[in-house]
Amino acid sequence: MNGATQAIRGIFFDLIDDPWKHSGHESRAARFLPDGLLVVKDGIIADFGPFDEVSPRHPGIAVTHIPDRLILPGFIDGHIHFPQVRVLGAYGNQLLDWLQKWIFPEELKYADREYAREAAGRFFDALLAGGTTTCQAFTTSSPVSTEEFFAEAARRNMRVIAGLTGIDRFAPEDFLITPEAFYAESKRLIGEYHRKGRNLYAITPRFAVGCTTEMMEACSRLKKEYPDCWINTHISENPSEIRTARQEYPDCTDYTQVHEKHGLLGPKFTAGHGVWLSDDEMRRFSRAGAAVSFCPLSNLFLGSGLFRLGRAKDPANPVRLSLGTDMGGGNSFSLIRAMEEAYKVGMCNNTMLDGSVNPREQDLAEAERNKLSPYRAFYLGTLGGAHSLYLDDVLGNFDKGKEADFVVLDWNAGQLAMAWRQSLAVPGGAPANVDEAAQLLFGIMAVGDDRNVDETWIAGARAHKRTPS
Amino acid sequence: MNGATQAIRGIFFDLIDDPWKHSGHESRAARFLPDGLLVVKDGIIADFGPFDEVSPRHPGIAVTHIPDRLILPGFIDGHIHFPQVRVLGAYGNQLLDWLQKWIFPEELKYADREYAREAAGRFFDALLAGGTTTCQAFTTSSPVSTEEFFAEAARRNMRVIAGLTGIDRFAPEDFLITPEAFYAESKRLIGEYHRKGRNLYAITPRFAVGCTTEMMEACSRLKKEYPDCWINTHISENPSEIRTARQEYPDCTDYTQVHEKHGLLGPKFTAGHGVWLSDDEMRRFSRAGAAVSFCPLSNLFLGSGLFRLGRAKDPANPVRLSLGTDMGGGNSFSLIRAMEEAYKVGMCNNTMLDGSVNPREQDLAEAERNKLSPYRAFYLGTLGGAHSLYLDDVLGNFDKGKEADFVVLDWNAGQLAMAWRQSLAVPGGAPANVDEAAQLLFGIMAVGDDRNVDETWIAGARAHKRTPS
Repeated sequence: MNGATQAIRGIFFDLIDDPWKHSGHESRAARFLPDGLLVVKDGIIADFGPFDEVSPRHPGIAVTHIPDRLILPGFIDGHIHFPQVRVLGAYGNQLLDWLQKWIFPEELKYADREYAREAAGRFFDALLAGGTTTCQAFTTSSPVSTEEFFAEAARRNMRVIAGLTGIDRFAPEDFLITPEAFYAESKRLIGEYHRKGRNLYAITPRFAVGCTTEMMEACSRLKKEYPDCWINTHISENPSEIRTARQEYPDCTDYTQVHEKHGLLGPKFTAGHGVWLSDDEMRRFSRAGAAVSFCPLSNLFLGSGLFRLGRAKDPANPVRLSLGTDMGGGNSFSLIRAMEEAYKVGMCNNTMLDGSVNPREQDLAEAERNKLSPYRAFYLGTLGGAHSLYLDDVLGNFDKGKEADFVVLDWNAGQLAMAWRQSLAVPGGAPANVDEAAQLLFGIMAVGDDRNVDETWIAGARAHKRTPS
Repeated sequence: MNGATQAIRGIFFDLIDDPWKHSGHESRAARFLPDGLLVVKDGIIADFGPFDEVSPRHPGIAVTHIPDRLILPGFIDGHIHFPQVRVLGAYGNQLLDWLQKWIFPEELKYADREYAREAAGRFFDALLAGGTTTCQAFTTSSPVSTEEFFAEAARRNMRVIAGLTGIDRFAPEDFLITPEAFYAESKRLIGEYHRKGRNLYAITPRFAVGCTTEMMEACSRLKKEYPDCWINTHISENPSEIRTARQEYPDCTDYTQVHEKHGLLGPKFTAGHGVWLSDDEMRRFSRAGAAVSFCPLSNLFLGSGLFRLGRAKDPANPVRLSLGTDMGGGNSFSLIRAMEEAYKVGMCNNTMLDGSVNPREQDLAEAERNKLSPYRAFYLGTLGGAHSLYLDDVLGNFDKGKEADFVVLDWNAGQLAMAWRQSLAVPGGAPANVDEAAQLLFGIMAVGDDRNVDETWIAGARAHKRTPS
């Protein structure tokens, strides 16, 4: 942690509530300070508010002024694959073929410590360049990759969740790990890394299709022994995968039941994708306090399908949601790009939900919830992600006592057309109120990318400054 | 045109045939020169081939060497809206609402000559930054916007197609133009601009829903009087729009028939989108020699739906296709980004066509045609676009006698993760054969954007050099 007390002055925007709870008045879920001051002590937010109010409370404090930028909480990536950094955006197949052809061979290399270490450096560099300050990551079935992941995260002082990634079937022989070895190595790694610095451990069955009952039982035992640990997996990404899950777990009526049966579905459980979850499965996620990580870059890139965002945000049974890039199935490290694609998924869903194609599919309330306003998008990428991961006590916005991870956004950067577009949203040149700030943020998510991330700060220290490239 | 004779040496990749005709052997449709020489005289390709063969034929010629880059024909955008440069990526609604809220008010400003002139400068700058050297553009119903568009294109010596854009209903009063005024102004503009320099004129009924029968008849008369002119319009973008078209043209069995009835469907006719075209409509497009411009950025951004690429490429009835950004419905000027989204649309289609959801929808042949390999993607963006616009005699590849518009691609630029990814595709550091070149190109379309466009050349002169931003 950065030991000194210091302050950052600038234009701040964060979410203080779920904007879906404020339909029609979403700005009530946001906090906007056109001239704010963030006071950080030992990496923790010690004070926050309008400059004129906060400044007198801290006479003589060193102030870093960051003008002409929007400062937001750091982005949280709920679902990403560390060992896929080099194969992001690989050509050609749906999930199961793609895994065999591109992913497994690359991930095998991460048993080599040097390769894994180099990759970890590149991985975290790319995260920071995209404005991501926290991620929940898959590693491989080799403990080496998990060790190097946590070691690099610790060097950078980043809040991360990861764990040895178990798979004991449907992959090449040398890619598999036995349930016994997975159990023993997971125990060792939990002891070594969980809650050491900012590292957090997730018991990680890769996906139920790739896990035998014995592997799921090993996870179940681990969760009982270490109830403080997270659980991270995949669910219902692709129709063929779901059929295989049904075949392999004939005693379960659906994919979700595999996790219920093993006592895993509950708080701190996240499953990536959930594209094909039924209404009933979503209700059970909601009641259990379990989360889905919505990965639109990947769902489009692999053609998995359109996640039913509006259904998941049913106010009667809301599912905890994060946004995930799912890099390398997702073709970018950028949560901003993930927001763009999430918006598109919502819009495509709504052309069906408006009833113009099939009147029986009309559901205008669900359609309204599919509309990814900037308030909703940046909620998913910050406080919402933190809430889904049960980390909203330490991350997600600028509340006092939280960890001071944040991003500094340049709303005019990116493709050449950006600046003129943004000038239409803020006639005064800078956002004068929360709506103007939100319009700039929509410009960033609709037209922008990692170029809009000018700086990324970890625990009060600048960890990334953009070099135009 | 650039009067001097000169030569460019570098790594060249272009398409010489439609790769869909070479399924399984798509590289046969491509031409790859790891060390090539392009000789340009008066803006026209005078010679092209391997450096060792071509160079001795031109002793003493000035050679510009561009190493470590892939040189491709300039990109062709088949569908873009000049007066939407400032509202690209606008928030919130499906087609018809979005037009009323964002588009019409902005387009109205283009009746002001100064505003239109400034916008034209920005528009062409953004095109060139994305590697686009030719576009077919909509303007507005004010002749001023068409004049300023052609004037700016002429200053830049770019091959463009555009025309006064007719709409006489379903828009604010001051946005409309009467069929009589549209007819008279179109005649005048054709006389003034068509085939002057590189400018080409398209008779442009905005979309049949916005055009009365009288407006369509004005277009019909214009096409008879000026058969050399192009026709540019929209079709079947959105289900609600199609229903409205059916209501407004009760004597037509489908949307396509509106154009058939007015004698417009034929060579040099392009309709943007075609998301919801029936199989029968596609067959009629194919037989007529008419084209569709596939606009995946827009179709996802507005939620219009998934274009059936594999159906349009049915070998029995192939539809001429270009790629379009449809900027501002599309949220980028970049054809590279359009290729990314086109790939995703194909992949999403295929999760239905593999029969895993509904066995009755299984069509593996169509699914194969949906797969947007780099050969297919860059064909659509270059030679295929030229073919669809009946410009393949002058544009689309490096054949002798064609116009020397090209882009210089840096395969390592873009988000931080790009270079390491690309190093996996080309172990030697540069592409040694056509397949390696294609793999780099897939990396660009899957992970890249306008940052990969290092230079853009128009008629043998460099018109854009990337400034890292």
